Amino acid sequence: MSSVAAIDYAHEHHARFLEELKALLRIPSVSTLPEHKPDMERAASWLAARLADLGIEAETISGNGHPLVYGEWLHATGAPTILIYGHYDVQPTDPVELWETPPFQPTVRNGNIYARGASDDKGQTMTFLYAAESLLQAEGKLPLNLKFLLEGEEECGSGHLKEYIAGNGERLRADVVQIADSHMFAPGVPTLETGLRGVVYTEVHAVGAAHDLHSGLYGGVAPNPLNALGHIIAELKDIYGHVTIPGFYQDVRMPDEGILHSWRDLPFDAETFRAQEVGSSELVGEPEFTPLERIWARPTLDVHGIVGGFTGHGAKTVIPGQAAAKISMRIVPNQRADQIFELFHNRVLDLAPPGVRLEVQLLHGDDPVLVPVDSAYVQIACQTLQQTFGGSVVLGRSGGSIPVVGVFKELLGLNSILMGWGLPDDNLHAPNEKFMLDNFYNGIDATIRFWKEVGRLGRPAGRME
Amino acid sequence: MSSVAAIDYAHEHHARFLEELKALLRIPSVSTLPEHKPDMERAASWLAARLADLGIEAETISGNGHPLVYGEWLHATGAPTILIYGHYDVQPTDPVELWETPPFQPTVRNGNIYARGASDDKGQTMTFLYAAESLLQAEGKLPLNLKFLLEGEEECGSGHLKEYIAGNGERLRADVVQIADSHMFAPGVPTLETGLRGVVYTEVHAVGAAHDLHSGLYGGVAPNPLNALGHIIAELKDIYGHVTIPGFYQDVRMPDEGILHSWRDLPFDAETFRAQEVGSSELVGEPEFTPLERIWARPTLDVHGIVGGFTGHGAKTVIPGQAAAKISMRIVPNQRADQIFELFHNRVLDLAPPGVRLEVQLLHGDDPVLVPVDSAYVQIACQTLQQTFGGSVVLGRSGGSIPVVGVFKELLGLNSILMGWGLPDDNLHAPNEKFMLDNFYNGIDATIRFWKEVGRLGRPAGRME
Repeated sequence: MSSVAAIDYAHEHHARFLEELKALLRIPSVSTLPEHKPDMERAASWLAARLADLGIEAETISGNGHPLVYGEWLHATGAPTILIYGHYDVQPTDPVELWETPPFQPTVRNGNIYARGASDDKGQTMTFLYAAESLLQAEGKLPLNLKFLLEGEEECGSGHLKEYIAGNGERLRADVVQIADSHMFAPGVPTLETGLRGVVYTEVHAVGAAHDLHSGLYGGVAPNPLNALGHIIAELKDIYGHVTIPGFYQDVRMPDEGILHSWRDLPFDAETFRAQEVGSSELVGEPEFTPLERIWARPTLDVHGIVGGFTGHGAKTVIPGQAAAKISMRIVPNQRADQIFELFHNRVLDLAPPGVRLEVQLLHGDDPVLVPVDSAYVQIACQTLQQTFGGSVVLGRSGGSIPVVGVFKELLGLNSILMGWGLPDDNLHAPNEKFMLDNFYNGIDATIRFWKEVGRLGRPAGRME
Repeated sequence: MSSVAAIDYAHEHHARFLEELKALLRIPSVSTLPEHKPDMERAASWLAARLADLGIEAETISGNGHPLVYGEWLHATGAPTILIYGHYDVQPTDPVELWETPPFQPTVRNGNIYARGASDDKGQTMTFLYAAESLLQAEGKLPLNLKFLLEGEEECGSGHLKEYIAGNGERLRADVVQIADSHMFAPGVPTLETGLRGVVYTEVHAVGAAHDLHSGLYGGVAPNPLNALGHIIAELKDIYGHVTIPGFYQDVRMPDEGILHSWRDLPFDAETFRAQEVGSSELVGEPEFTPLERIWARPTLDVHGIVGGFTGHGAKTVIPGQAAAKISMRIVPNQRADQIFELFHNRVLDLAPPGVRLEVQLLHGDDPVLVPVDSAYVQIACQTLQQTFGGSVVLGRSGGSIPVVGVFKELLGLNSILMGWGLPDDNLHAPNEKFMLDNFYNGIDATIRFWKEVGRLGRPAGRME
């Protein structure tokens, strides 16, 4: 027995929570595949019905894309309001032959539940519903106001969600956003994500001759867009990992020494990480920073693909008329996507070799995110994580982007609390995705504790700044 | 009436020659498409039968690939022997919708015959047969010995031919090879190709991580093979067209000043060439050489394609585990393919950035060819070209390779006379391939004159050195 009735309730209902999660995981809600459109609607209706069962007013909202699920419980007068975000869509299952058990037949093995979406993000999303159920059943009410916004297009660009947020600022008014779509640093190491890198994804188009040419008959006089792109790529980043675009690092603000120090104490072994996760002969990148600093707090630049010419088997002596390179930059506080794109764009144009015309296109840009760690919400999150998992809480970051965090900030002015229950080896987007049952259950407990403490804040402690 | 009976005969039979050429052009002998295998056999039999009709002993030789046609007339005791090379296979016709008349329905328009293979190489090959017919009919014999070796795999690597040449050195013994598979510098400008660039075609494989990685979660520490290839490409050639591989130019022997001078007098307008053939904003390459020198007498390096990562529409944030670049060098006398590959290979390995393992593969290499211009055969060729076309003869070169020329040199020790009757705008390998009828008929005349003069050389003036 804990000292919290809602947590006792949750513990008594683990078996049912697991069975219900399995039911959701059986719905193959793959948002990118048109044949799963009915499954998307089924998953959305299932979630709306579950919310309604709990006594949370809920609806599915259809639009151009897959439905949104919206729910609200707003009876905690004077208490803060949290906007919960999650997603019920999942990645495709290819290569399906590598799954040990079928992706939509959830199976428990070794304390994990295996299924597509187990960790990303159905399992994590359901912790919110079970925390709410436990509080409502054990205490008759929630200690704070909740708004649920669950989408079905996270794996395909969140187009519908962004549109809905932009048009429903009043309805979505809240003090803070809470998201469980990330992972803990390691099993038993509770983690609060306090920063996300942004991204600036570009395509550089190079045009030389009016059409493809034979390299024997024209080699030596015809401009070659592929050679041009090689030249440009080499001039954007040195082989030691430094981006060489003038002004690129100008606005980079490194974390305080205290935070950097705490990262050095984390149970992170670079050699194990190299061997088990990356599998390269060495870890590369700016030698003056540690690997974690390079991923969490340093910007970088990567080429993702080069289009053009001949890429089949064997030899073809073509000088392509055109070629293009997909190049992205990961950016960190306080870099801004629009400014970095401008610097990139200008530098690339400056690098144009003779005879080659360049165009630089921005495919998408997301600003980096920094959670204000001195906020009361962060302090409460740390406290409840520690109560639930023991040990000290990692104020970590992620090298990746969660674009919706930037959308909430930009359109609603809201910061996000990123407490996630996944693990680095959960096989997101890969075969044999799993979710650790202990994390599922502890995630519910931690959420209950978090909400109870936040409820005590009262308004106008209010909005997280 | 000319002063040569065989030429008079040829002129009287132009109409029939054209009808016969059309019959050969109607056979869709596309060597790379398996469904045309019966057409390949039909074309080979047609040629063997035509040779036999003339009184030339001929056979088709079947093996692993498409048949060879071999024929010989060896009754000119004491006279030199020419080994004639040609090919009866043609390129595919895609995109077929761009043809004004169907590719295998030969059509005469504006003094040209339009059909796939008209210029490359059926029309040019047939000039040899009609020159032989004219001499045999008008004079009862040939002035020299001829061996015909016509292949059906020129457009797909000449595998069968090389094997046959390697195994039949005695049968193929000759003094010189003659090939009509090239083009005149311009209409009315007779041209002897006196040099061909060689080629060294490579693939550079770069391996970083053990598998593809997400650029958010690993960008900054994972080696990126595409960035690595960009760096390597940039370090192999500067943007002004100079190859920067140490030692690369060491063996380059530029043509004599007299030859370079003659090139400067050619009716070549760089601006027209840029606008009409290349279509780029400028011609690029080593500024200290003229465009013709860059193509004919200078080595160069081009990237043909880069494999790996994501090249579809839109954005995918992948750091590929592996990537590869197809890179070739055109080489000139006295560079050698094996030595240049060695220099390239060593340089690329030296350029490996941290964390990236490189492998360099040679896909194929052909040495450059230089025709000994002081040979009596060249002098006769020039003389007969001038008699036939008027004007002065261009001792030009080609930036491309004709690999079989190197094969004849390597396996049989034979030099080649490269008198061709095509034109630069004949649309080889493209829709609306054509062959100018005047060149077809003049090619026959020039060949008759050439053979008569060569016949007078007698052996042991013999082998062209």
